[in-house]
Amino acid sequence: MKVNDKLFKTVWLEDDVVKMINQPILPDRFEIRECKNHAETAEAIKTMIVRGAGAIGATAGYGMAQAFIQGEDIEKAAELIKNTRPTAQNLFYAVNKVLKAKDKEEAVKIAEEIAEEDSEASKKIGEYGETLIKDNDKILTHCNAGWLAFVDWGTALSPIYSAKRKGKNIFVFVDETRPRLQGARLTAWELGNEDVPHAIIADNAAGHYMKNGDVNLVITGADRIAANGDTANKIGTYEKAVLAKENNIPFYIAAPTSTIDISCPSGENIPIEERDEKEVLEVRGVKLSPEKSHAKNPAFDVTPARYITGIITEKGVIKPNKEDIKKIINP
Amino acid sequence: MKVNDKLFKTVWLEDDVVKMINQPILPDRFEIRECKNHAETAEAIKTMIVRGAGAIGATAGYGMAQAFIQGEDIEKAAELIKNTRPTAQNLFYAVNKVLKAKDKEEAVKIAEEIAEEDSEASKKIGEYGETLIKDNDKILTHCNAGWLAFVDWGTALSPIYSAKRKGKNIFVFVDETRPRLQGARLTAWELGNEDVPHAIIADNAAGHYMKNGDVNLVITGADRIAANGDTANKIGTYEKAVLAKENNIPFYIAAPTSTIDISCPSGENIPIEERDEKEVLEVRGVKLSPEKSHAKNPAFDVTPARYITGIITEKGVIKPNKEDIKKIINP
Repeated sequence: MKVNDKLFKTVWLEDDVVKMINQPILPDRFEIRECKNHAETAEAIKTMIVRGAGAIGATAGYGMAQAFIQGEDIEKAAELIKNTRPTAQNLFYAVNKVLKAKDKEEAVKIAEEIAEEDSEASKKIGEYGETLIKDNDKILTHCNAGWLAFVDWGTALSPIYSAKRKGKNIFVFVDETRPRLQGARLTAWELGNEDVPHAIIADNAAGHYMKNGDVNLVITGADRIAANGDTANKIGTYEKAVLAKENNIPFYIAAPTSTIDISCPSGENIPIEERDEKEVLEVRGVKLSPEKSHAKNPAFDVTPARYITGIITEKGVIKPNKEDIKKIINP
Repeated sequence: MKVNDKLFKTVWLEDDVVKMINQPILPDRFEIRECKNHAETAEAIKTMIVRGAGAIGATAGYGMAQAFIQGEDIEKAAELIKNTRPTAQNLFYAVNKVLKAKDKEEAVKIAEEIAEEDSEASKKIGEYGETLIKDNDKILTHCNAGWLAFVDWGTALSPIYSAKRKGKNIFVFVDETRPRLQGARLTAWELGNEDVPHAIIADNAAGHYMKNGDVNLVITGADRIAANGDTANKIGTYEKAVLAKENNIPFYIAAPTSTIDISCPSGENIPIEERDEKEVLEVRGVKLSPEKSHAKNPAFDVTPARYITGIITEKGVIKPNKEDIKKIINP
């Protein structure tokens, strides 16, 4: 997608260097971070220089390719990369896929395929999802499941970009998404670059707008989808899903099928990453709370399938149940 | 309540000066703001130097007393003070009450009575509410309805202070309450001063903890209660109420009966204050979002009575319906 009229992807491999958009410093500065080996790449995933389901997957694949190119112990590299973020399905998917390569050429080829697949899937999600958006719709989204969260296009935002290009008149409510503010920082930045009308709101205000009839549709991304359709996504997604159901507003998850973990029977089996309390106690280095107070900081929550209207995948829109999920994984 | 082992109230009158705890700079610094005339007092309400239903009411009463003492045009003073915050019922209640005074002596007396009533009501709310708290309960609260929001004791936090003093083992989840962070800044500060175990959470995490069975009870305050029990309170309250109902967790509103606006038939008639978008786009002066993005910032939302288990008042705990509300107003 475009940044200052130049086309960019979120992450790419150049020789044996992984290059990525440095996301924590957005929207203040636009800067490319270079990771010279798989350890630096793993660190970039862990510290969220790169974040978002698909982008984490592609980066992990490139990190594995680096390990192959630089002759590192592949099993150890896989362990290191897997241990960065416990909730993201795409991370394990990518590491395990490159792990099977016979040599560095094949490793690079597989890693590039993962990134290309991600990009293609995102584009198709946009095409399928766009059909759910009516002219004059007001859409709520949570966190950032835009192109920055993938290699290109994104998932939750891809149908929005597609609708915009088809000339539909749309408006997007952007949950700011505390604690890390991916909505206020990244989704708003993406929508601004693409000239999509939008307003940032405190996460607390989403229910208010839903109750007042100001929201027609909710679309979010997913970090892992269990075999029964239960979905782990950014903390707060469960709240928005319950509120959408209460107000009879369709609630869609947009994610490539690589996000589905068929070995995971339900949401109860998805581990939830607990991150540093500082993310809650401070905002961009500014302390918010009293010295002696502590915080709890779960990064994700699980939305049970019964709150989800449908899952927008690169193979079409499906219902969040075992049968439909099985069918789309093994057609 | 105690601050560094010295007893304080949130706001008080000394001769013709209204003194109040400067709340926007908490918890970093503890400082008393002095307002020398009713215009300065009105400005302090508007800019939220003092905030919270009861504290706004008491401050408005003192501001009216100042106007009487200083020989100002009383009707004009009443207009100025009423125009500061459109949602708070206590503001209108206090201004109208002092407006009826015959002279400055009576004005001061009525203003002091309003503050004293508020303090007494808060204490009684604590006693009634405490009976709803079981040993080992984990309680969620939103925004700050503690003593800083009133003259002393508070409403939502008063039962918690009362339970703590009775030796009950309790834990409080503190919603940080974006955009103004009254939870992270003020509720956490109050609970810390009173040694109540607590954790600050992003507003997005409340649903997660409710779903996982970690919350036994939700108590929030109220800015205005309509005749049918619909309740306006800090933005996000509606979200927490829906989530509590969905997870079968009792959801109580704690408020003095002065918060009830019997002339207001339902929540649809309560005006919702829209505040400066900067409160969302910045945190304590730090810009969070891209230059070209805008925000919407409703300060309150309305929780329909059907989501409210009960209202804890200074006269007992009632059901949120017309009959019970009428009975408690006109016994």
